[in-house]
Amino acid sequence: MPMNAKLAVPDHVRVEQQLVNDMQAGVLAPGARLPSEANLVDRFNVNTSTVRQAIQNLLERGLVEIRPDRRICVVQPKITQELVELTGFVEDMKALGMEATARVIDKKIVAADETVARQLRLRKGDPVVRLQRVRIGDGIPLSFDETFLLRSVGEKIMNDNLVTTQVFTLLEEKYNTPLLEAQYTMEAVPAPRAVAKALEIRANSPVFMIERTSYSVDRRPVDYEKLYYRADHIRFTTRLPRRIPPDDERPLAPEAHE
Amino acid sequence: MPMNAKLAVPDHVRVEQQLVNDMQAGVLAPGARLPSEANLVDRFNVNTSTVRQAIQNLLERGLVEIRPDRRICVVQPKITQELVELTGFVEDMKALGMEATARVIDKKIVAADETVARQLRLRKGDPVVRLQRVRIGDGIPLSFDETFLLRSVGEKIMNDNLVTTQVFTLLEEKYNTPLLEAQYTMEAVPAPRAVAKALEIRANSPVFMIERTSYSVDRRPVDYEKLYYRADHIRFTTRLPRRIPPDDERPLAPEAHE
Repeated sequence: MPMNAKLAVPDHVRVEQQLVNDMQAGVLAPGARLPSEANLVDRFNVNTSTVRQAIQNLLERGLVEIRPDRRICVVQPKITQELVELTGFVEDMKALGMEATARVIDKKIVAADETVARQLRLRKGDPVVRLQRVRIGDGIPLSFDETFLLRSVGEKIMNDNLVTTQVFTLLEEKYNTPLLEAQYTMEAVPAPRAVAKALEIRANSPVFMIERTSYSVDRRPVDYEKLYYRADHIRFTTRLPRRIPPDDERPLAPEAHE
Repeated sequence: MPMNAKLAVPDHVRVEQQLVNDMQAGVLAPGARLPSEANLVDRFNVNTSTVRQAIQNLLERGLVEIRPDRRICVVQPKITQELVELTGFVEDMKALGMEATARVIDKKIVAADETVARQLRLRKGDPVVRLQRVRIGDGIPLSFDETFLLRSVGEKIMNDNLVTTQVFTLLEEKYNTPLLEAQYTMEAVPAPRAVAKALEIRANSPVFMIERTSYSVDRRPVDYEKLYYRADHIRFTTRLPRRIPPDDERPLAPEAHE
């Protein structure tokens, strides 16, 4: 496609714009690798520095990114997951129109460490069931989950289908353990080596870690989880009301939501 | 302190335990640098490999950490901040018993980019007021905040005291703009260079980014913020109820909270 001289568009802008068009048309899909410099030089009949300038502009616009292996790829917009009620991975994916599966890395009885014991109200060293799974959405490993369950119910769940069924559903529908609420702690941490390997990301790259303790009736903790989410693929959203004023300042009706 | 031979505690365990005692006694405060290997060799009259084993154990127990500059320091437990209602930094610090200040990096009128325009319901390129501040809790830079305000009120706020007063308080108490709720997006991102510099952390180390749009009456957006929190110093907590069943399945009273 020869350049239209009348428009006087610089070559690098023309290359940049055509690549954006390719992205918008889906020719360059999210996550796809950008054609090589040599390929672009040939295709647009320009020199290497022009191609580099175009790519630099795309990087600055956040439309492409340099991956850990140095490949330049079209940016994948992050999945936005709601954090407004206690839901499991299968429910979360369903809400996003995605298919949930899992790869079970390990399932066994371990001794509760200090944190697990505190969260599940046990003594340190007490046996608990630990599940380690990679949770997969539409084929992408989205989170590495460590689930710690009370031994009584955990030993049963170990033998259930943990690939397509979520623990919450098993607890609620099969083991008569309704879940009422959960305490969440959220932080950004550098990916531990084992997590990075499971999620196919670089060690120490940012992960969004959620620690979650789910409670049944009588505020009895039944499930403590460490969820390491791929920060390059997922973000979370919630809506919070402004401080609830003390009773004597409260307006007639709560108006914070809608 | 000579070792009591009868107890037969290995030297490295004795060194490790004494250092833990020092931490518990506050002799080694959170954030303090661990004494040098040479110092510990002298003090405990042991060899270097024994000291290294003790330090290795403390690292594995998560009681000390290696800083970017290779110093080994006592771990600072993360501040845990509640995310249950819309609050500003000064309120957050007050709730934690900490003193809030700020360093104003920049305040000026800028053209709204696509995101700012969408969040504040303006046109791209419309003028908005942008404040850039480092928010400081008890002397520690905890977050880098970019605040985008509608020009009308923002131009007034630019001249207010932005070091010790929060924008929310100014909006509500001085400019008659009540805040009702906010939309939060939370993600883990590698620290952009400017943010890393302001927060005194390494570029690309994990930060907990919150994007927050605060709404006044009639769901009118007035304030869009990008808050970059130091992930090594702060984490967030919330409590979520299990899915609210559809109306016809709902129990007589909501029981998820207390």
